[in-house]
Amino acid sequence: MIKVGEKLNSSIPRTREALERRDASAIIELAGRQLDAGADLLDVNASLFMGEETEILLWMMGIVQEETGARLMIDSPNPAVMAAALAADSTGDAVVNSVILDEARLSAVLPLVEQYSAGVVALPIGPAGIPKTPEARLENVRKLMERLAAEGIGPSRVYIDTLVEALSADSGAAVVTLETIRLVREAYPDVNILCGISNVSFGLPNRKNLNAAFLTGAILAGANAAIFDMTDPGMRDAATAAEALAGRDEYCMEYLRHCRGKNNP
Amino acid sequence: MIKVGEKLNSSIPRTREALERRDASAIIELAGRQLDAGADLLDVNASLFMGEETEILLWMMGIVQEETGARLMIDSPNPAVMAAALAADSTGDAVVNSVILDEARLSAVLPLVEQYSAGVVALPIGPAGIPKTPEARLENVRKLMERLAAEGIGPSRVYIDTLVEALSADSGAAVVTLETIRLVREAYPDVNILCGISNVSFGLPNRKNLNAAFLTGAILAGANAAIFDMTDPGMRDAATAAEALAGRDEYCMEYLRHCRGKNNP
Repeated sequence: MIKVGEKLNSSIPRTREALERRDASAIIELAGRQLDAGADLLDVNASLFMGEETEILLWMMGIVQEETGARLMIDSPNPAVMAAALAADSTGDAVVNSVILDEARLSAVLPLVEQYSAGVVALPIGPAGIPKTPEARLENVRKLMERLAAEGIGPSRVYIDTLVEALSADSGAAVVTLETIRLVREAYPDVNILCGISNVSFGLPNRKNLNAAFLTGAILAGANAAIFDMTDPGMRDAATAAEALAGRDEYCMEYLRHCRGKNNP
Repeated sequence: MIKVGEKLNSSIPRTREALERRDASAIIELAGRQLDAGADLLDVNASLFMGEETEILLWMMGIVQEETGARLMIDSPNPAVMAAALAADSTGDAVVNSVILDEARLSAVLPLVEQYSAGVVALPIGPAGIPKTPEARLENVRKLMERLAAEGIGPSRVYIDTLVEALSADSGAAVVTLETIRLVREAYPDVNILCGISNVSFGLPNRKNLNAAFLTGAILAGANAAIFDMTDPGMRDAATAAEALAGRDEYCMEYLRHCRGKNNP
């Protein structure tokens, strides 16, 4: 599966402080730990810094890529910031986070996706907000897929984020997300399905416990990409076990490799 | 969910030795630990003792029920042993494990189920053995449900065991089981779906890791009963988190209670 590191985000207090101080070694350490733990991409977000977002995001990207060469998921609400970040990206292999079913947003972001041959995260949020039912989310996914295909952006470059809300606010939140994953996987066998894990446990204790179970459920439902804290051994255990149970690990080779690494660290 | 303790089984070497020695305190300890950890029923099996099965099973049941009053799942391939065990059961609330789609077996066991108003585990194994596909397993479940209904045994007394084989032998084994659970739950909203967890990890290392992920997947797919080792804290964590994610724990009350117990043991 595609593992996206979640830590380089200005909404996390420790990261925000490191960005405020321009503490390069703290940022590089956060990045390095996720990459050492198997991250394929790092999500980078500086959107809490109003007015300074571009400057701080480019600074963070620069030191991370100079030190690690990591692929990045460029996470910004602002298309102008995205444009600057894509121009600065040293790998030429970024993913843009995100578009929704909103024409202004789509027509601002998709030309950038095309220009840089980037991947793109697409959220099934429409004019009426986040749909309540899996079927309505799938309907928005269909519209997004049609629009992206019309721009020449095929499923292998698309990451559908099926959206998850906090279980503490709605006991049915996870069921809706997992069922959406299942419906999207059935309709689009080749698209990437991305699941942000940690929202689900917001406001509850022992979050790692819920996060590990939700990651397991998302993989078994058909997600092949997730944003989560892969430095947590319980999350790596859950991901490896779920991939094996999902039948995506022939002869359990990855699972066995993972166990050997744990037993002989 | 309905938690069935798995330890009082003669196929487990430590249990077998305790049964051979008639070591009442060892058996009571195994039973007590599962019950303290939340077991609703205990599976009891002495089938490895050929010729002595009835004697040993009744001895085990007697000491366990005298000490704990536990509800039992009476697990035997032999209808005569089942008859003796049901007659000896002190709760009058046993579950019989199991019937398959085999007329000789059904006509020997179902009269006992009726006579003692017992529950019954039904395995979708037909004349051709264990079906390979979820659809074929569902077809056998339909035939079993029809036959049980004709005998007046309604869904609340039936425990469908969707069967799991070892992942080490077949990378697709867990997917078939989980998809079967989903199909059976869709077709029979009121039946109990029972999942034996530990078979899935047979022959692989770090079995607890795979077992916890499989329990999570089974609950999210729609199982409401499982045979597993509830003395393992990782399994209890997984069960509680999965129930909450499945939307079966209003306001996450059980999850919160579980967390309080962990943090203040």
